[in-house]
Amino acid sequence: MDTVRNYVQSNLDRFLEELFVLIRIPSISAQSKHQADMLRCAEQWKVFLLAAGVDRAEVLPTKGHPAVFAEKIIDPSLPTVLVYGHYDVMPAEPFELWDSPPFEPEIRDGKIYARGADDDKGQSFMHAKAFEYLVREKQLKCNVKFLIEGEEEIGSANLEAFCVEHKDMLRCDLILVSDTSILEADLPSITTGLRGLAYWQIELSSSAIDLHSGLFGGAVANPAVELSRILSQLIDDKGRITIPHFYDDVEAVSQAERDLIAQIPFDVAAYKKEIGINDIHGEEGYSTIERTGIRPSLDACGIWSGYTGEGTKTVLPAKAYAKLSARLVPNQQSEKIAQLVAEHIRSITPPYVKVKVDFLHGAESYVYPIDSEAYRAAERAYEKVFGKRPLPVRSGGSIGVVPLFEKVLGVKPLLIGFGLKTDAIHSPNENYPVEMFIKGIETIIAFYKELTIDKKN
Amino acid sequence: MDTVRNYVQSNLDRFLEELFVLIRIPSISAQSKHQADMLRCAEQWKVFLLAAGVDRAEVLPTKGHPAVFAEKIIDPSLPTVLVYGHYDVMPAEPFELWDSPPFEPEIRDGKIYARGADDDKGQSFMHAKAFEYLVREKQLKCNVKFLIEGEEEIGSANLEAFCVEHKDMLRCDLILVSDTSILEADLPSITTGLRGLAYWQIELSSSAIDLHSGLFGGAVANPAVELSRILSQLIDDKGRITIPHFYDDVEAVSQAERDLIAQIPFDVAAYKKEIGINDIHGEEGYSTIERTGIRPSLDACGIWSGYTGEGTKTVLPAKAYAKLSARLVPNQQSEKIAQLVAEHIRSITPPYVKVKVDFLHGAESYVYPIDSEAYRAAERAYEKVFGKRPLPVRSGGSIGVVPLFEKVLGVKPLLIGFGLKTDAIHSPNENYPVEMFIKGIETIIAFYKELTIDKKN
Repeated sequence: MDTVRNYVQSNLDRFLEELFVLIRIPSISAQSKHQADMLRCAEQWKVFLLAAGVDRAEVLPTKGHPAVFAEKIIDPSLPTVLVYGHYDVMPAEPFELWDSPPFEPEIRDGKIYARGADDDKGQSFMHAKAFEYLVREKQLKCNVKFLIEGEEEIGSANLEAFCVEHKDMLRCDLILVSDTSILEADLPSITTGLRGLAYWQIELSSSAIDLHSGLFGGAVANPAVELSRILSQLIDDKGRITIPHFYDDVEAVSQAERDLIAQIPFDVAAYKKEIGINDIHGEEGYSTIERTGIRPSLDACGIWSGYTGEGTKTVLPAKAYAKLSARLVPNQQSEKIAQLVAEHIRSITPPYVKVKVDFLHGAESYVYPIDSEAYRAAERAYEKVFGKRPLPVRSGGSIGVVPLFEKVLGVKPLLIGFGLKTDAIHSPNENYPVEMFIKGIETIIAFYKELTIDKKN
Repeated sequence: MDTVRNYVQSNLDRFLEELFVLIRIPSISAQSKHQADMLRCAEQWKVFLLAAGVDRAEVLPTKGHPAVFAEKIIDPSLPTVLVYGHYDVMPAEPFELWDSPPFEPEIRDGKIYARGADDDKGQSFMHAKAFEYLVREKQLKCNVKFLIEGEEEIGSANLEAFCVEHKDMLRCDLILVSDTSILEADLPSITTGLRGLAYWQIELSSSAIDLHSGLFGGAVANPAVELSRILSQLIDDKGRITIPHFYDDVEAVSQAERDLIAQIPFDVAAYKKEIGINDIHGEEGYSTIERTGIRPSLDACGIWSGYTGEGTKTVLPAKAYAKLSARLVPNQQSEKIAQLVAEHIRSITPPYVKVKVDFLHGAESYVYPIDSEAYRAAERAYEKVFGKRPLPVRSGGSIGVVPLFEKVLGVKPLLIGFGLKTDAIHSPNENYPVEMFIKGIETIIAFYKELTIDKKN
């Protein structure tokens, strides 16, 4: 380990300067004025990957922003690792809330402050530097490919077509993604699951136009009240979703995994204070971490109807709307759930109002097996660097590209992230501790050394 | 009757030309750019009332737009009638939906098209012309006062203070208001009741800020769903409001009055078609007319929470809001109901969310006794002119000034209106049939002739 630490320490200034070169390019995928910056950032990645030791690197077109592909094939009969990252970043507005300019990286109190410092320039660049070490020190025991895309922050809409088109080029036996967080700086964890998603819009109509609430109130159904009746019926008093067959496909989580979850430190008082709630609330029989990690949920993301301005307007609304979303767990299928929920809502809508349920978006859940060889190698790598065995954590969120790789390439990505929840990703003053940048590189190197996987593809 | 008809017919062109002079002044109380028009319209009313035969007429200041007062005292020992009307009109936007300019009155197919043609220039001017007839033909048997205000369409906020200040001047034994409608052109009716109103805003809070619906969904209460639970609990399956003691003070309506209500023609199919609903819906055991006339109601006038824009945003909202209104019947008191509803909502809100209930506005219900001498005189007057006995109808709406007069002056206004539901008041192409203008004048004259009231004040 000392060799690794020495290498990282003696090259740290250069590593950071290279990372800052990437950060200074405002590669904001959502803003068309930065289109030239996108290509510039992709080209810069290509330069850095070539310098790190790949055999070839290319900037490839997609239907949107270009993607960077690079590879070092030391022996085609050896297994291949594919590293996925993204060079695009979120917009930096509102600029006035930043303490230093978002695209002029600055180190304060041991942290790099800049848009992309963590997400995902900082995290993905650790892979380039770990790879550089393995190449230079002649310790690379497998083939390595890099795919650095430019549209993650805008939904990776063109990535599936790209992966299908370049399926042979992307063939691999293991995929590594560093775009997640660990529990605390001194409490490593590995994200072993992501929830899926289904999202609907509901429109309830009563009359053709808004009515006078005096002349019609009491004689004509109120769609806002009827919508409330529907929403209130979807979850029971015990926090269980009432839609028939909703839980049919939910994977039973073993007691062993629930025991591991129970080991994750969780301070209810701190949690309540942090988000400003009176109390936690959810499905009976599950802890907060289980409720977001291994159990599905159903939420209204928005509701609206009638008059929402200042003061009073006495109106009986014609229509009422809701945006509804479910977070799904293995093995729930978003399309099937979409159908079940739409049918159930239609079935409980009374005949005196009209209902429309539109399925807007779906994403699949994801789980990485903790009894796999790669997971165990990652466990050992984190333990070596952090001094603690990492805890497996199922995140409540969804990362669309992760199930996408499983679907198109047939390989489950392993999520070895090094972010902290204090990194303010997507927010002003995004930052990344230099310590995490160093430990990340060291852990990735340790992982490659621990790894003994079979060639599958 | 023939003398009256002859008088109206032979003076009709002048009556209409005078009304058009009032209509051509855009006295829109809500728009400050029309402030000079307000004074101009009040002064014009003063001129017309003096010409009609009052002893004195004045334009008096209020804290808002001025009011017109006029009177003819033929003998202080005789009873006094106070006529209330308003010279202000609603805004005319959207102008492009008018077939002729709103402030250039035009007669088409026997109807006067203009803003204010019915509400309330047309209806209140009938009183001036009926009074003119009685004075000129020396048939006036009582004292008459006129109060024509300029703020009815913006809530008459300064009228109570004005009435208190001028209580002696406004002293009277009967108040007449023509600002309501009859059932059909050939089916006269008298509005014998108005509902009261209570209006609240509810704010439900869960977290301090909007949360990520993936990372927190299932573990933190959703205020939009909790609001739905609350709203859905306020009315039961039989359409009854569930708030304890809500119905305690509701006046029991006699079977005799319910029998009269049952005589009001009502075509469910036409009603459904007119407002575009699948079906009627309301409290069990009551007809549609009873549901809006003699029963209280509770409605959400608006609800909002979270993301309400296009497409999907996966957010767990921090707050959810509702605008809630109740229509009240005699003898419910708006302040007491406001309290009951707020307390009940607080009591059913679960401890893991915070709730705020603000009472925004209240108005009292109103009922005019159908066994009174003035009501019987009005019945006979309508029957003479329309050939049919008018039906007593309780309107579901609220007119704030009506209970106000009862409260401050101790006199219940009699609502003898002549509008039709096709008059499009407050809407583009407001109109008033010349036939109703004529019949209104004739009915008011007949009413004065039929009237035998005692001097009370």
